[in-house]
Amino acid sequence: MKTLQLKDCNLLVIGLGLIGGSLAKDCVERKVFNKVIGYSRKSETMAKAKELGLINDFEADLETAVSQSDVIFISVPILTTEKIIAAIAPYLKTETILTDGGSSKESIVESARQFLSTTQFENFVPGHPIAGAENSGVHAARANLYQNQKIILTPEDETNKTAISIVKAMWQAVGGQVDLMSPQRHDSVLAATSHLPHLLAFNLVDSLAKNSDYKDIFNYAAGGFRDFTRIAASDPVMWHDIFQANQKSVLTALDQFLSELHRLRDAVEKSDGDYMKKVFMDAKVARDHFSKILEARNSGCSEE
Amino acid sequence: MKTLQLKDCNLLVIGLGLIGGSLAKDCVERKVFNKVIGYSRKSETMAKAKELGLINDFEADLETAVSQSDVIFISVPILTTEKIIAAIAPYLKTETILTDGGSSKESIVESARQFLSTTQFENFVPGHPIAGAENSGVHAARANLYQNQKIILTPEDETNKTAISIVKAMWQAVGGQVDLMSPQRHDSVLAATSHLPHLLAFNLVDSLAKNSDYKDIFNYAAGGFRDFTRIAASDPVMWHDIFQANQKSVLTALDQFLSELHRLRDAVEKSDGDYMKKVFMDAKVARDHFSKILEARNSGCSEE
Repeated sequence: MKTLQLKDCNLLVIGLGLIGGSLAKDCVERKVFNKVIGYSRKSETMAKAKELGLINDFEADLETAVSQSDVIFISVPILTTEKIIAAIAPYLKTETILTDGGSSKESIVESARQFLSTTQFENFVPGHPIAGAENSGVHAARANLYQNQKIILTPEDETNKTAISIVKAMWQAVGGQVDLMSPQRHDSVLAATSHLPHLLAFNLVDSLAKNSDYKDIFNYAAGGFRDFTRIAASDPVMWHDIFQANQKSVLTALDQFLSELHRLRDAVEKSDGDYMKKVFMDAKVARDHFSKILEARNSGCSEE
Repeated sequence: MKTLQLKDCNLLVIGLGLIGGSLAKDCVERKVFNKVIGYSRKSETMAKAKELGLINDFEADLETAVSQSDVIFISVPILTTEKIIAAIAPYLKTETILTDGGSSKESIVESARQFLSTTQFENFVPGHPIAGAENSGVHAARANLYQNQKIILTPEDETNKTAISIVKAMWQAVGGQVDLMSPQRHDSVLAATSHLPHLLAFNLVDSLAKNSDYKDIFNYAAGGFRDFTRIAASDPVMWHDIFQANQKSVLTALDQFLSELHRLRDAVEKSDGDYMKKVFMDAKVARDHFSKILEARNSGCSEE
């Protein structure tokens, strides 16, 4: 690496959707890097990203793009991330810092270990910004997406400390709060807070859409349903990849949920009011507590 | 009934929480009735409602309150609604129009038929405004809650047509879009769009709160989780009553959901990408369609 200063480095963002495009936009606007280069497999996406001011420049040849870059951020669906790591490995300079934004970390670390050389792997800092929305694509990219949001990095024992610092500095420069944890812990926490809710929302909406009362159901649904099912509008391919990649932790979280749900179903069937009230009350207390965590985070205070 | 004009009638609102308080507030501000009287079992709630301008006056004695009123709206948890119908039946004038805001209709119709005289029952118009929020109580009441929202009335064959018109006019006066359907259809549609999502949200949050990773789970949850679980902060007693009252339809909707969820679980376990993608894609299409319905409704256009 030429230097430890981000402003002397070139950032390459591979994948210019909501996650990559929003990081790129903040980095361009805040002049975090010397240059932000965009790469997408679609040339119209790169042109649009340039037009929208998300990137300083784009490069349609991946090898050329990689060779010009000091820091590379991959933000494409997980299975494609693994393919890109394999594709760039032959010409990735050992000093280039590689990071990603995938929602599942164990499988990506495993692929990176398989495809990268030992030295390349030391400069790979797996990451995941806990931010996002149901919209996707280059038009969804926006400024300040990461302000006060959690960014999880999951380095391994051998990961280069300088590489971790650089990736951390990049996220802090766009307002993120960076935490480190193991890929296993990340995958288990995210399975519970993000992957399982998405699976339930997809399942509920699909199950209702198969119903013969389909039209009435959506016609008489209100705000609670709108919020609850918003994430069912998320990108199907991205989520397919997440459930493939984080299969083990998702199944663990889902099975725990199912076991509790069957118990609650029995309580409804048996009119067991005490059990129902306890579940609803405990849930309300926990959800109200979560609201306070979110409020503190959004006001910029840290909560411990 | 003295007249068909709402402005010559007195409205009594029994229960001054989000639903009752918001209706009362709009009726006071828009001068829909001659007078809006509030009743609550707690005197401090009635005083607060008067102070907040939700009601013109309050009356701590239920019999006196009922005797002064031409239209009565009951907005308390369902099991309490049934108790109130039983309590006021002995002194409810046969010409007084009675309606309610309960989220489950079959059980309320059954109770009303049991406790009211034939003539009283003819003036009972069961209703349910499809509006609400996770907040509850007198402080949650707000203006324009019902603007462009669906209001379902579920009259029986013998229900007095004038009574239906009066209740319809009341909801239209506060911006609601009134539709009529059978109690059975209401309960089945609401089980799918509202009761089941609430059950899932309560179950998910309670299930996560029992996890040893509790703290991390909430600490690393983001916007999707916030929206998905918002309804888990809803009033436990109100929801307990709904699941008791609408048990049959809730179990039907839940069992259909569970059957689909077990199938999706198998697809995750077997890495059946095609099945997952189909479910996610169908859900996304349906959810995007629902967004358009909501947009049309909120812009004031009707959609058919």
